[in-house]
Amino acid sequence: MASAAPLHPVARQALIAALDEGWADPARLYREGRRARLLLDAAREAAAEQIGCRPDELVFTPSGTRALHSAVAGAAAGRRRAGRRVVHSAVEHSAVLHAVDSWPDAEAVPVAVDRTGRVAPGDFAAALRPDTALAALQSANHEVGTVQPVAEVADACRAAGVPLLVDAAQSLAWGPVGGAWSLLAGSAHKWGGPPGVGLLVVRKGTRFAPQEPEDERESGRAPGFPNLPAIIAAAASLRAVRAEAGREAARLSALVDRIRARVPRLVPEVEVVGHAELRLPHLVTFSCLYVDGEVLLAGLDRAGFAVSSGSSCTSSTLTPSHVLKAMGVLSEGNVRVSLPPGTAEEDVERFLAALPGIVAAARARAGAPTAVRDAGADEGTATGTTGTTGTGPGPAGGDGLVVDALGRRCPIPVIELAKVIGEVPVGGLVTVLSDDEAARLDIPAWCAMREQEYVGERGAERGAAYVVRRRV
Amino acid sequence: MASAAPLHPVARQALIAALDEGWADPARLYREGRRARLLLDAAREAAAEQIGCRPDELVFTPSGTRALHSAVAGAAAGRRRAGRRVVHSAVEHSAVLHAVDSWPDAEAVPVAVDRTGRVAPGDFAAALRPDTALAALQSANHEVGTVQPVAEVADACRAAGVPLLVDAAQSLAWGPVGGAWSLLAGSAHKWGGPPGVGLLVVRKGTRFAPQEPEDERESGRAPGFPNLPAIIAAAASLRAVRAEAGREAARLSALVDRIRARVPRLVPEVEVVGHAELRLPHLVTFSCLYVDGEVLLAGLDRAGFAVSSGSSCTSSTLTPSHVLKAMGVLSEGNVRVSLPPGTAEEDVERFLAALPGIVAAARARAGAPTAVRDAGADEGTATGTTGTTGTGPGPAGGDGLVVDALGRRCPIPVIELAKVIGEVPVGGLVTVLSDDEAARLDIPAWCAMREQEYVGERGAERGAAYVVRRRV
Repeated sequence: MASAAPLHPVARQALIAALDEGWADPARLYREGRRARLLLDAAREAAAEQIGCRPDELVFTPSGTRALHSAVAGAAAGRRRAGRRVVHSAVEHSAVLHAVDSWPDAEAVPVAVDRTGRVAPGDFAAALRPDTALAALQSANHEVGTVQPVAEVADACRAAGVPLLVDAAQSLAWGPVGGAWSLLAGSAHKWGGPPGVGLLVVRKGTRFAPQEPEDERESGRAPGFPNLPAIIAAAASLRAVRAEAGREAARLSALVDRIRARVPRLVPEVEVVGHAELRLPHLVTFSCLYVDGEVLLAGLDRAGFAVSSGSSCTSSTLTPSHVLKAMGVLSEGNVRVSLPPGTAEEDVERFLAALPGIVAAARARAGAPTAVRDAGADEGTATGTTGTTGTGPGPAGGDGLVVDALGRRCPIPVIELAKVIGEVPVGGLVTVLSDDEAARLDIPAWCAMREQEYVGERGAERGAAYVVRRRV
Repeated sequence: MASAAPLHPVARQALIAALDEGWADPARLYREGRRARLLLDAAREAAAEQIGCRPDELVFTPSGTRALHSAVAGAAAGRRRAGRRVVHSAVEHSAVLHAVDSWPDAEAVPVAVDRTGRVAPGDFAAALRPDTALAALQSANHEVGTVQPVAEVADACRAAGVPLLVDAAQSLAWGPVGGAWSLLAGSAHKWGGPPGVGLLVVRKGTRFAPQEPEDERESGRAPGFPNLPAIIAAAASLRAVRAEAGREAARLSALVDRIRARVPRLVPEVEVVGHAELRLPHLVTFSCLYVDGEVLLAGLDRAGFAVSSGSSCTSSTLTPSHVLKAMGVLSEGNVRVSLPPGTAEEDVERFLAALPGIVAAARARAGAPTAVRDAGADEGTATGTTGTTGTGPGPAGGDGLVVDALGRRCPIPVIELAKVIGEVPVGGLVTVLSDDEAARLDIPAWCAMREQEYVGERGAERGAAYVVRRRV
């Protein structure tokens, strides 16, 4: 249940065999070099067949990240004369966003997503203009699993004469990406292949000007000595996982349905995020109110569950995941569960059995409203301790009750809000002062979950003031 | 005897073990992620110890080429305000030269080398100026094995306030690089490690501005999911080869001495290139007159010897290696022999026994002067066929005998020159018309080897006219 998975057995076997067969330099003329070249060509053909492209359209890169970087730079440079505008969904992988940022004078145009994380093809099409150099859309989101309307967006891009780059890293294990896209990137370790291998496809007819220093390897699109044993293992494992993909997708998808249905019944105050049907088979994400994500992950880890999180408290940047932010959903206590192929039903049941206790313990530790710790009852009249956070009557001027959560990190600002909302009359205001980036996302998300009114945010001497009106 | 070598047994073992232990994402918080982080840290410490740097100065990259690209771009950008001048030896690896070329507005300043391929520290120092952003010098040359005066050049760079980048790819198997360098790059598959791993060292205090898109991996200096199993294998194998380095270097160096001494006695008209003493222990390069490099390599390959070549006829670019060009030595029939660790004396003897017959066969096929085919006697009066090349009296104007070798590739222009030189009197001229890039290097080199006078080159309607005066 992790963002990386152990090697597929076929990949392991192919990699070990290739250590003995594929060590030579495929650019060399002697026997071992020619043999290496044949192995590289065979791997390219096998991968191209699974992607649905011509072998000469596909090169191997050292990682999916590098494939995305090269794709953005090469395609944007190839369209330099059209303009500097790059249209992309707001929930692309950071490798795409950072690659766009690093393109000189790029005008990045994010297309908003709905609460499930999906772009509307019409919104995407409307953002395309004659000066758009490149468009980018993932096949499916890496954090919440929502599948994007790639084929429709590709048609709109084609009509506008704009090349579309598809980040297919999340979905290649399950099948090829349909539609008239122009560029595609993938990552072998996401499909059970080894680390150290990405792939970049540039369709014939797509303008592409590699931006890395000149190099004779991989059609000049991926400099450096190729990692042949890993490439051979990557191609072999893609073929192997695809052979099992149909059956395994159905099985894992049913397990994900089970998690999506049962988590909100087992754990109070949880938001399951991402699209319920248009989603990857193996990925499910939910967020738990009043929980420090790091404490939650540590608890799950101790119980033997390796999960990821988009919570700010589990990242080094102190900000919640840009994906959750763009979706406008709760980020605190965020848990991302990725079921690797072969995950047993028992593992999922064990997870569902362990989760409520682990969340309850994490909530107790964070000082969550007591009613929620145990049963999820309305905490409007909660009597939990307020810790060291100062709460008190607001200053004159109609802010209502002011909660000073300055200097306190997620999930404390939301917990303090939940604790005091019952102290103001229905229709009254609570203002939360916070300098934690997560509050900007989580206070409105809490209001939506608890049917309270989020009035808005305004600047404050430090951080921001978030104003909430009690409705229930 | 190749540019890549089979994995060191320690690397193979470490890689296979790491496939099971090191698959997780070291950036993750769960148990497998923390374990992966520990393995990555341990590999970094082991590699840093062998390099002689601090662990936090060293990052792992996907290849030596990428390490050099990042080093040049990051260091040049870090010194942007100093200027755009990059001083480097004329015989740096193409990865350095291409990285400099791709740096916007870079002024590349190659420092000439002597006939052994070595730069003079004084020449290098003289090229440094206040507007020099970066200097680059390899620890040893990849084609001819000549060791460069890194420590002296590093002192000169330090005195001038210019950071020195050392491409140490060729020498790291044998020991650390001494001297006050600022940046260093290496490649694991050159020391018996796996492909897919390079390393980049940036000494504390060196200005460095990574030019790749932002990424949290490897201190922001090497984007993308790290290839952990290969990194672990790379570090383990570096330690293992270093433990054997002293003994193995002495043994291989004696074998190289044997090749250097015996090849010129066994094969007529051969130039052994590179420095005889200041050289790598395992590398030896020589060039054979009147031989098509591709034919020679194919013959050696059939006999079981995997060698490389800097001849133009074995490259896709139709130009001889820039290293041989900078040295001013013969490029035709070029053979580069790299002895992997463990090479047996018998293998070398077998090579020396096979070489003369293979060269003679290649010369016969190329139509070399007959005397040379068998015994290396003076071919001044050779009677070989002239093939389809037109030769005849020169036009009025003192060009002497004109050999029209237009449209003919290496080694034909030199062969035709050798065939006709005896037809002009001592003091008389022969002019060779050629549009083969190799002729520019090989005709002067032939003159030096045969004690004829190379008068010079001038433009011609097609290609160039190379004028030679008979002296003997």
